[in-house]
Amino acid sequence: MYNKILIANRGEIAVRIIRACRELGISTVAVYSKADMEALHTQLADEAFCIGEALSKDSYLSMERILSVAIATNAEAIHPGFGFLSENAKFAQICEKCGLDFIGPSSEVIEKMGDKAEARATMMKAKVPVVPGTKTPVFYADKAKNLANEIGYPVMIKAAYGGGGKGMRIAKSENEFEGQFQVAQREAENAFGNGTMYIEKYVSNPKHVEVQLIADKFGNVVTLGERDCSIQRNHQKMIEESPCVAISDKQRKKMSEAAVKAAKAVGYESAGTIEFLLDENGDFYFMEMNTRIQVEHPVTEMVTGIDLIKEQIRVASGEKLSFSQSDVALKGHAIECRINAENPEKGFRPCPGKITQLHVPGGNGVRIDSAVYNGYTIPPYYDSMIIKLIVHGEDRKTAIRKMISALGEVVVEGVTTNIDFQYDILNHSEFQNGYITTDFIPKYFGEYVTH
Amino acid sequence: MYNKILIANRGEIAVRIIRACRELGISTVAVYSKADMEALHTQLADEAFCIGEALSKDSYLSMERILSVAIATNAEAIHPGFGFLSENAKFAQICEKCGLDFIGPSSEVIEKMGDKAEARATMMKAKVPVVPGTKTPVFYADKAKNLANEIGYPVMIKAAYGGGGKGMRIAKSENEFEGQFQVAQREAENAFGNGTMYIEKYVSNPKHVEVQLIADKFGNVVTLGERDCSIQRNHQKMIEESPCVAISDKQRKKMSEAAVKAAKAVGYESAGTIEFLLDENGDFYFMEMNTRIQVEHPVTEMVTGIDLIKEQIRVASGEKLSFSQSDVALKGHAIECRINAENPEKGFRPCPGKITQLHVPGGNGVRIDSAVYNGYTIPPYYDSMIIKLIVHGEDRKTAIRKMISALGEVVVEGVTTNIDFQYDILNHSEFQNGYITTDFIPKYFGEYVTH
Repeated sequence: MYNKILIANRGEIAVRIIRACRELGISTVAVYSKADMEALHTQLADEAFCIGEALSKDSYLSMERILSVAIATNAEAIHPGFGFLSENAKFAQICEKCGLDFIGPSSEVIEKMGDKAEARATMMKAKVPVVPGTKTPVFYADKAKNLANEIGYPVMIKAAYGGGGKGMRIAKSENEFEGQFQVAQREAENAFGNGTMYIEKYVSNPKHVEVQLIADKFGNVVTLGERDCSIQRNHQKMIEESPCVAISDKQRKKMSEAAVKAAKAVGYESAGTIEFLLDENGDFYFMEMNTRIQVEHPVTEMVTGIDLIKEQIRVASGEKLSFSQSDVALKGHAIECRINAENPEKGFRPCPGKITQLHVPGGNGVRIDSAVYNGYTIPPYYDSMIIKLIVHGEDRKTAIRKMISALGEVVVEGVTTNIDFQYDILNHSEFQNGYITTDFIPKYFGEYVTH
Repeated sequence: MYNKILIANRGEIAVRIIRACRELGISTVAVYSKADMEALHTQLADEAFCIGEALSKDSYLSMERILSVAIATNAEAIHPGFGFLSENAKFAQICEKCGLDFIGPSSEVIEKMGDKAEARATMMKAKVPVVPGTKTPVFYADKAKNLANEIGYPVMIKAAYGGGGKGMRIAKSENEFEGQFQVAQREAENAFGNGTMYIEKYVSNPKHVEVQLIADKFGNVVTLGERDCSIQRNHQKMIEESPCVAISDKQRKKMSEAAVKAAKAVGYESAGTIEFLLDENGDFYFMEMNTRIQVEHPVTEMVTGIDLIKEQIRVASGEKLSFSQSDVALKGHAIECRINAENPEKGFRPCPGKITQLHVPGGNGVRIDSAVYNGYTIPPYYDSMIIKLIVHGEDRKTAIRKMISALGEVVVEGVTTNIDFQYDILNHSEFQNGYITTDFIPKYFGEYVTH
């Protein structure tokens, strides 16, 4: 096991990793930008080093600075968290070359899964169901349109090197295809520096259901149930839960088997997630694989009782998985709400600023993952998520009631948040009945989304 | 199931009960003293009524005022929490007469178990092991000394109608017997208005191990493992954990069977705890039964996954227990630290006052049960416990590391607390090795206790 780990991240996930390290008896090194001098991860780590200016490109995305700190402090491994460098194959590769363990899969696997067209091809080969679509990426709108005509409308236009919902557009008909293609391509070029796209059949009224898995260096792959992340705004998840109430045990088993096939096809190791679209007929299609820990991992931890971050660190250090598939049982129901400093009344515009009063709920089955405190100033440079509120109850009904009760207890003053919006969703009868698809928010809360 | 419950308590346990009611869909009525206008339980309940002045006798102990509110608000049941009226047989009896469900056992059972001499006699009859001692209570020092001589020193002198460590003294020899008896009796008279005492063999270096049980109205009694509460100061528990590492599965089973016998002997219903002394040879003796929920119930909830308050409400309303003995399995290890506003450097003198900054830890397996918030003023009239910090890990070593990490994250400014003292205990090698007996604090931290 490692003696020291550097955490190449900030916010609640950096705090989450520091806590896991403390439990494992591992020393922690934090890196922070000038905007994060007062951040919680900076304060909690055993050592902390300023690596640059506020903008991510000058700090949390600066490979050389992060690596310099890792080498200077004798860290043996780097945990990248999510976002930032977590799915950067080049960074993983440099870590490997420097003799540092990158806590994640190998750089080859990151690259393979990061290129969505290649990932798609890999999955087709491994007989994991994929949405019908282009087999190779496309760059030119006219060629793309021909392919879209072949697939049949509506189609989804996606950035080949994208993520987080950027560079994605739906074309409902041939008429609007070129316009939407260009918007998506422009967004992809701006966000990822690459306008390579692909086109696939648009699955209407789908659910976003993803399978959490973890694999060790000995070829063992275990799935830890699924998460329903259908409550999204602009492809950004807002509420996640486990298990998904819409699938039967039989479908769960099929999905788990597909996820294992997908992971084994690329020789995956570490924690990872296979995202599926689940359609109205109960069929599911591979969307993408996230080769890192995800924001919503706590709901899986709550229903399985397994600490994913600790297990991820253990397998990275060369340990065998401490459990097998038959040890995994889902107990009860967990829900996570992402509390963001943003204004739902004004197009969800981020609302950084000073938190002048903070109170978070506690009690049985209530978990808070957060990196803010009373008096903390949220910097404007990073993600607006400030608190993950996670609850666990014996069933979905109880978990919903618990979440409503817990949301009602949260007090955040000084900045605007989406708490009331989350509260409205939780209280919506269709949500409570489990009728949630990815168009839930535009359908029932369209007045917000169109602002 | 009830529609509305009145909570005859304050502080974190009142908040705990309100949360449980919300999950069950039950409306809540809070009562509060003039000192608790800004208290969290006052704010969180659906209705809240001021019942009098700050001193408990004028508010939280005022049976007629509490009952008036219950009747006026159409509450169907009263949850007494712990302390205050929770073990007052007369209050339970009046509730019964008013057609209100007292959430606890019947008034007869409270009376039977509240009279320690009678409880002892009942246990002996039920063949539950008890510490050798007087069969009937005593009032006069000279008669008591004769009995003590018969039992053999050291002996424990105890108030027959006491609790919470008050009215208890050890006499190591015949010489000091009368002095100690008088001190204990005076304390008992002041605290409980009754100087009836009893004498028993003092078990040296014992562990305090208690069995949690819950029983329904249909004669089903289920035990939920045990708690080791040996870390005490002046008979006040400070740190509790489950399971107890010092007992084997065989002893656990024996203890559980004894607890069931004890509960069945009095026709017990509701949640309750049988407290045992565990001696150096692994033998255990009945000390007393607490006929109410206890402060430390969360550690049991963490290892069993069962919500004790919800289950207590369910069985009170006439439901059958939702699980049987074979459903109960202890998973992992849980520890609770009671964070008190008190000064360990000055004889643990309570330190009420305004909390000017508050930060509590979160994360995987960390639970906070508390009724304080940033800016809250702790009134001087009640218990000094302000936060229960509970952690759950896969084993005791992990739970200890998690607690040390979590204690390190707590920030309470404006009032003095015992956090550093708790931190020192958790870091003590004998604690970490599991060598904990009720004399742990005087033995290793005597400089504090003798201040």
